[in-house]
Amino acid sequence: MPQVDDARVLIDAALRDDAAVFQLTEDRAIVATVDFFAPIVDDPYAFGAIAAANALSDIYAMGATPLLALNLVAWPRDPALLELLGETLRGGSDVVGQAGAFLLGGHSIDDKEPKYGLVAVGEVHPEQVINNAGAQPGDMLVLTKPLGTGILSTAVKREMIPESDIRAAIISMSTLNAGAANAMRAVGTAVHAATDVTGFGLLGHLRNMLEASGVNARISAGSLPIFDGVRGLIVKDAVPGGTARNLEAAREYTEFIAGLEKTDQLLLADAQTSGGLLIAVTASHSQNLIAALQDNETPTASIIGEITHRGAGLIEVVA
Amino acid sequence: MPQVDDARVLIDAALRDDAAVFQLTEDRAIVATVDFFAPIVDDPYAFGAIAAANALSDIYAMGATPLLALNLVAWPRDPALLELLGETLRGGSDVVGQAGAFLLGGHSIDDKEPKYGLVAVGEVHPEQVINNAGAQPGDMLVLTKPLGTGILSTAVKREMIPESDIRAAIISMSTLNAGAANAMRAVGTAVHAATDVTGFGLLGHLRNMLEASGVNARISAGSLPIFDGVRGLIVKDAVPGGTARNLEAAREYTEFIAGLEKTDQLLLADAQTSGGLLIAVTASHSQNLIAALQDNETPTASIIGEITHRGAGLIEVVA
Repeated sequence: MPQVDDARVLIDAALRDDAAVFQLTEDRAIVATVDFFAPIVDDPYAFGAIAAANALSDIYAMGATPLLALNLVAWPRDPALLELLGETLRGGSDVVGQAGAFLLGGHSIDDKEPKYGLVAVGEVHPEQVINNAGAQPGDMLVLTKPLGTGILSTAVKREMIPESDIRAAIISMSTLNAGAANAMRAVGTAVHAATDVTGFGLLGHLRNMLEASGVNARISAGSLPIFDGVRGLIVKDAVPGGTARNLEAAREYTEFIAGLEKTDQLLLADAQTSGGLLIAVTASHSQNLIAALQDNETPTASIIGEITHRGAGLIEVVA
Repeated sequence: MPQVDDARVLIDAALRDDAAVFQLTEDRAIVATVDFFAPIVDDPYAFGAIAAANALSDIYAMGATPLLALNLVAWPRDPALLELLGETLRGGSDVVGQAGAFLLGGHSIDDKEPKYGLVAVGEVHPEQVINNAGAQPGDMLVLTKPLGTGILSTAVKREMIPESDIRAAIISMSTLNAGAANAMRAVGTAVHAATDVTGFGLLGHLRNMLEASGVNARISAGSLPIFDGVRGLIVKDAVPGGTARNLEAAREYTEFIAGLEKTDQLLLADAQTSGGLLIAVTASHSQNLIAALQDNETPTASIIGEITHRGAGLIEVVA
């Protein structure tokens, strides 16, 4: 239940869901979200595209359709960097266009360190809102994009690998979760809960879903989709601060099977940017969902675990 | 006309209006805006309240009613400063509550320099949208809050005066433009255009209204509402960089009467935070609007000039 006591507020921050949902009429609710961050790749166009896909992801995670977006810009007043801003905005605008939404303005301020993001507003039928609170024992957990973007972008930042080595991750981060949302719609009410995987990592976002739903889960580390090269970079310590903090926090509610390597633990906690959707779906429809994801340009989706039983939101990670 | 070619987009960034307006149904449009900035006062609660009043102002300027808001936080990961963040969020939340809107979440990132702002979403009947493009020759121009907040907050930042000296400005900046919006509603279609006065100063925001409307205006410098002490601080050079840049830009389209002091010129260009509404209203209803503003807790409103004739957006400033 939202904390705000008004029947029009369908989703607020109380459930740590991805976006706010406010009912306007019997058959229409609006969904609003905002996200922004410092550049995570050097290519400014890619940064803009990633920021837009990331902001719009919260709309898709709720089962909603994006309508409009606003730019959010904090950028140095330096002519050389303003050219990069132009490319960043072009990347953002192109992805908003791919979503079928309209970029209708925004706000910019001077800042020493550049940052970019977007406000996104979408709409959804109030009865078709997918929140993170409906996962049921027996549900399968599906993740739609590979993990490891935090580690890969940290490795590039530390000049351990060139940016050209993480092309697959850049394309993935720039890709809208629109296909995943279409696939969820295709299986209808068999989808019980969804969220997108971003800064808190897979374990953090799964935890929010489990707590909101009052259930526990088991994840199979061996089934996780992972970008090439990520494991080797973890061994070389290309671990972002957020990922290490996520793992510390996750130890409170996660039981790792004895012998599970630290590499796997960090991967499960890796802070993602523009990650995939994490979807709880009835076991009987899980293969339908995987097929629908493949039909909707999301071939990387995998079943990564299941909801085991009612509980306080604990996670068990097996090999 | 918006640049975006879709009948549902009623207002986009093309007219440099305050917020985007998107039509959902025959009788409902949503209005979305975002605004954020670094602290302009030391008192963290006041900063939060000002940021919220400022963000919601764009909703009121369009004739809309606020529905929901999201926090936007960029803050250092420093425990001492996190306490200040708590107070800032409390100030923002209280003002969102005063607006009858719901604070439903947000996004925060680590940043060296603190910044706070909000996304605001409102609704309006599509036929009751007040934009900045409808000003007509003969209209009177009404400004609802005094000018000088940029100069006053700069003087405090430079320790020329204590923050306790600018209490009136802090209260004004923390005050919603809700009363002004109610007053506009009370005079109905006699209001031809409105915008809020913020970072581009009175001249910059007036210029946007004039260009969008295809008209010229005359402003009477002697009629401007001004906070106490501002003129003296301009003389002592308490002029923010944005105000000086605004004046440079304004010289392109503004003719100051011979002998008008630089003090007055800077005041007209002063970058405001959470400034008042600038309203173009038929001459025959201008006194009704002033009376309605007084009835709606906006006693500082004054007639400051008029729309003179069709034109390219030029401003004449007389004494």
